[in-house]
Amino acid sequence: MKKLYIIAISGNIMDDQEKLNNFLLDFSQLRGNKILVHGGGNAANQICEKLDVEPLLTKGKRGSDQNTLKVITMVYAGLINKNIVARLQSNQCNAIGLTGMDANIIPTLTNENDSKGFSGQVDSNTINISVINALLEKELIPVLAPISHDGKGNLTDINPDTLASELAVSFTDLYEVQLIYCFEKKGVLKDISDANSVIPVITLDNYHQLKKEGVIAEGMTPKLDRAFNALDRKVKSVRICAADKLLNTVNSPERVGTELFV
Amino acid sequence: MKKLYIIAISGNIMDDQEKLNNFLLDFSQLRGNKILVHGGGNAANQICEKLDVEPLLTKGKRGSDQNTLKVITMVYAGLINKNIVARLQSNQCNAIGLTGMDANIIPTLTNENDSKGFSGQVDSNTINISVINALLEKELIPVLAPISHDGKGNLTDINPDTLASELAVSFTDLYEVQLIYCFEKKGVLKDISDANSVIPVITLDNYHQLKKEGVIAEGMTPKLDRAFNALDRKVKSVRICAADKLLNTVNSPERVGTELFV
Repeated sequence: MKKLYIIAISGNIMDDQEKLNNFLLDFSQLRGNKILVHGGGNAANQICEKLDVEPLLTKGKRGSDQNTLKVITMVYAGLINKNIVARLQSNQCNAIGLTGMDANIIPTLTNENDSKGFSGQVDSNTINISVINALLEKELIPVLAPISHDGKGNLTDINPDTLASELAVSFTDLYEVQLIYCFEKKGVLKDISDANSVIPVITLDNYHQLKKEGVIAEGMTPKLDRAFNALDRKVKSVRICAADKLLNTVNSPERVGTELFV
Repeated sequence: MKKLYIIAISGNIMDDQEKLNNFLLDFSQLRGNKILVHGGGNAANQICEKLDVEPLLTKGKRGSDQNTLKVITMVYAGLINKNIVARLQSNQCNAIGLTGMDANIIPTLTNENDSKGFSGQVDSNTINISVINALLEKELIPVLAPISHDGKGNLTDINPDTLASELAVSFTDLYEVQLIYCFEKKGVLKDISDANSVIPVITLDNYHQLKKEGVIAEGMTPKLDRAFNALDRKVKSVRICAADKLLNTVNSPERVGTELFV
């Protein structure tokens, strides 16, 4: 079975142009089929502030009102996505920037109970993989911004970690899928104040125990929940690692970051 | 030979959501292969003002500095492009929003003498029609924002009228191409103060004469120059008409807007 890497980049790294560029250079050098999913970082909040629009909520959960969503769309689908694509193109990596609404690749549902609306739910079963796969077969590299639509003309905001994991699951019939979450930390930390306290392996049993003990930081649990969920649905492997270790994670036998097992 | 419509929408209509939505409904109903190229309207200028960034220059010519270009990218490639795509998708029109840098479909050159930089020149000969045509063959509808890149990681700003005409020329070996410029006026006007003074037909000879007499408003000449240039390079027909007359322009025998002939 052919391999496919689904790589998510998010966190503070999105606001550090030099580190982001280094990551994109490594991403460009990664061989094989690959898809990049990116988050937004703080740029959207900064622009919200300047435009006097309510900023995003954080802590893993987010809700967007219509004005916030306009800014998110500008920043994620416009500024960040296009800067990433231009940079990848300059690295001879034939990137194509898309959102979930383009060619309706990632339809989303909105929750009617969500009073602020427009927070989009992604389901691997409704992802239109045929268009994405046609791009992969033309050796194009999809770069996905976490924005989509509800089919009624409204934009929706997607959690980028969920987008990456559902996308990974959706491709498991066609590829051996490896999901890699890259961010500014070295992996899942045992002690949030110690950058080197990386937990090298977390099994599902471990995970429940670590959560119970409160070892896993609150902001990390949604990412891990999704990761284990993906592993449970035929994704071959999940890694969580530092953005500057992407190539080591894929190519070298040394353990890098945190590896998850069900 | 199969037909391809290249349709450009620009001008004040971009700032009128209701009129834009009506246009997009008509565009959705237009049968056959089609590509939409859109401009930006005043939204970018308004956001530049709020963010205390120098706005775009107008009068047919534009120059962008780096901060202006960031805002243009946010507004054109983010907000406007994605709102158009979401709207078209809700009309069951399978749109895919792209900029020139995506899959490197529209590489641009920058002029070294342009001290502000980043104003991108498009050349029909360097347009990568194979990717765009593969999308058309999958019955996808490309929606192009007038933003691209210089191949060195920098974004560029493209004139949407030029983008439409060069794109039209680039497809003439594969399709019978009709280029249609839609905007808020009924066509090319003989008297700018009389909205009904549409010139129904302009030949190239006419055009030179009208320009000499100063009948053609200054802001209109770049569009017309490009249109005649496209006709000269195998584009089958060029129309300039009101956004709400798109379907009449294509389907009905009545004369709508201004038709150009070489």
